[in-house]
Amino acid sequence: MEAARVSDLAVPNTGWSAAMCEQFQRLLRRAADGSWRRIPSYRRGLDYLPEVVQMAVGVVTRPGPRLFLRSVDEEGAGFEYAIFLHASGHRTQCLCQLGPYLEGHHGFAHGGAIATLIDSTVGTCALAVAKASVMTAKLSISYLAPVPVGAVVVADSRMERHEGRKIFLSCHVRDTKRDTLYAEATALFIQVEDTKPPPAASL
Amino acid sequence: MEAARVSDLAVPNTGWSAAMCEQFQRLLRRAADGSWRRIPSYRRGLDYLPEVVQMAVGVVTRPGPRLFLRSVDEEGAGFEYAIFLHASGHRTQCLCQLGPYLEGHHGFAHGGAIATLIDSTVGTCALAVAKASVMTAKLSISYLAPVPVGAVVVADSRMERHEGRKIFLSCHVRDTKRDTLYAEATALFIQVEDTKPPPAASL
Repeated sequence: MEAARVSDLAVPNTGWSAAMCEQFQRLLRRAADGSWRRIPSYRRGLDYLPEVVQMAVGVVTRPGPRLFLRSVDEEGAGFEYAIFLHASGHRTQCLCQLGPYLEGHHGFAHGGAIATLIDSTVGTCALAVAKASVMTAKLSISYLAPVPVGAVVVADSRMERHEGRKIFLSCHVRDTKRDTLYAEATALFIQVEDTKPPPAASL
Repeated sequence: MEAARVSDLAVPNTGWSAAMCEQFQRLLRRAADGSWRRIPSYRRGLDYLPEVVQMAVGVVTRPGPRLFLRSVDEEGAGFEYAIFLHASGHRTQCLCQLGPYLEGHHGFAHGGAIATLIDSTVGTCALAVAKASVMTAKLSISYLAPVPVGAVVVADSRMERHEGRKIFLSCHVRDTKRDTLYAEATALFIQVEDTKPPPAASL
C-alpha cells in the first residue's frame, strides 16, 4: 500500500511533455532486464512514518513539510522527474522535465533549479551507496550551457570514491540525445546518524 | 506604477514569521542612511516587458514562466526573501525565510534550496557589478550545518574579483544572530549579451 501511494505521485501525468513520456518509457524498457530499477518518488519524507508518529511531530500543521522538488502543485510547472538506480547500486540517472516555474534568466532554468536536480540525483546515489542517511557536504557545479525551461534532461551520477563515511560522486546533466552537456558537478556526501528533526519553527 | 507592482510581491505578508519581520525591519532601518538599498522583487522577468511584447512571446499561455524562488503560491511555504544591495554596488545581503516546502531531509532545507538562495544572492551582486546580464558559470558550496525549515537566514555575498566579463564572488549563509555558519560558497558569473529566449518548449 505504501509503495502504491508514493508511486502514484510519479506516474506520467498531464504535465509531462511528449519528450518526457517518450524518454520515461525508454528508461522503463531498459530497466526490464533488472540492470536498472525505478526509485519510488514521494512528496515528503514523513509519508513513510506511521500516522501516530506524524501526529506527534505535527504533520497536521499547514502548510506541512514537502519535498522541495514537489513544492509546485501545477502539473508540469515545476520538476517532473523519475530517478533510476543501476543494479551496481553506484549509479543513478534522473530523467527530469524542467517546467516554466523554475525560471532564472527569462526562458532558461534557474541555476538553483539545476543545482537542485543535481543534488537530488547524487544524493539518491549516495543514499544507495551508504545504505543509510546522507547529507550534502560539498557541491561544485560548472554550468556549461543554459537549459531552456520545458527541456527534458538526464542527470547521470556515479560514485567515484567511498572512504568511511565520505562518499565522493560526479554528475553530468545532458539533453536526452546526449548532444549537449549542460552541467557537470562533483559532490561529497557524508553518512549521518538518523537524527530527530529540529523543533518546529514558529511559522 | 511598475515599481509598485513588483514591490507589492515582497512586502511582509502573512507567511512571514515574527523573526523574518523583525530582521526585515532591522535591515530597512539600516538602509535609511543610503548605505544599503532594497532591490525590487518580482515574480517573473517578463513582468518588466511591455504588455504587447508579453503577448508576442506568449506570456498568456498557462502555466506561464515564473521566477524559481516565486514558484510556490502559499505564503510562507517557500522562499520568503528580500535582497539588499550595498552602496558600493559590490555586496548583497539576502534575508530569507526557508519555508516547509523546501524540505530535503525531514525537518531541514534541501541542499538545492540553499544553492538556490546562494545563486540568487551572488547573481544579484554580479548583476550590480556587471551592470548587464550575467549567468552562473561555476558554483561551489560547502554545507557546514543543516538549516531547519522555517529558519530565517542571511546570505551575505561580495565581489572578490572582476576580470573582463568574469566576476568572482563569495557568499556566506548564517543565522540572523551570526552564531552559525550554515554554508559558504564561491561563484563565478559571466557577463552575457542579452539574448532572445529559446523557442517555447512544447509543454
